Amino acid sequence: MSQTPETTAPQGADAGADVQAELKRLRASIDNIDAALVHLLAERFKCTKAVGTYKATHGLPPADPARERQQIARLRDLAIEADLDPDFAETFLNFVVKEVIRHHEAIRDGRH
Amino acid sequence: MSQTPETTAPQGADAGADVQAELKRLRASIDNIDAALVHLLAERFKCTKAVGTYKATHGLPPADPARERQQIARLRDLAIEADLDPDFAETFLNFVVKEVIRHHEAIRDGRH
Repeated sequence: MSQTPETTAPQGADAGADVQAELKRLRASIDNIDAALVHLLAERFKCTKAVGTYKATHGLPPADPARERQQIARLRDLAIEADLDPDFAETFLNFVVKEVIRHHEAIRDGRH
Repeated sequence: MSQTPETTAPQGADAGADVQAELKRLRASIDNIDAALVHLLAERFKCTKAVGTYKATHGLPPADPARERQQIARLRDLAIEADLDPDFAETFLNFVVKEVIRHHEAIRDGRH
């Protein structure tokens, strides 16, 4: 008597259930990480808004290319260490800094 | 005898030094937050690469619009709670998901 049909079907079903369970597990981790990212970004903008207020009060320009170059170099190094594509880390920082400059300009123009 | 000239000058200098010290303090916090963000993003891509491998193995498409809609709605709610612009949170997620899909396509095409 062959067990193949009986064992293959449940194995296939189990494999499907395992895949779904594993996807669910990974997505739960992604959701946790995203919540952490959102809260860290909120905290980061609190800091950069304070920087923006200082800059506006003291007539400093919203953008600071020298500081940004330092930040990019540092983040690229950290990314390599963390096994993250350094180009992505740089694009990410540029993406965030663009939003920060928008906030700083709003502060300077009295829109915040 | 007026103390004004003597007291005004140091006060001005102190204010300048205070501003520099405060900027330095805020920037140190921004740098700490950025290091945390880079490490969280690295961890997030580990999860999404695992998801990509599962999807490729099981012939699922790299993008999943229903899941993405859920993620966007959830992140917008979390952003509001954290006092972060929900539009920025959504743009941020789209930015990250774009990179994830690029990874998934690379996995599917055997480039990872």
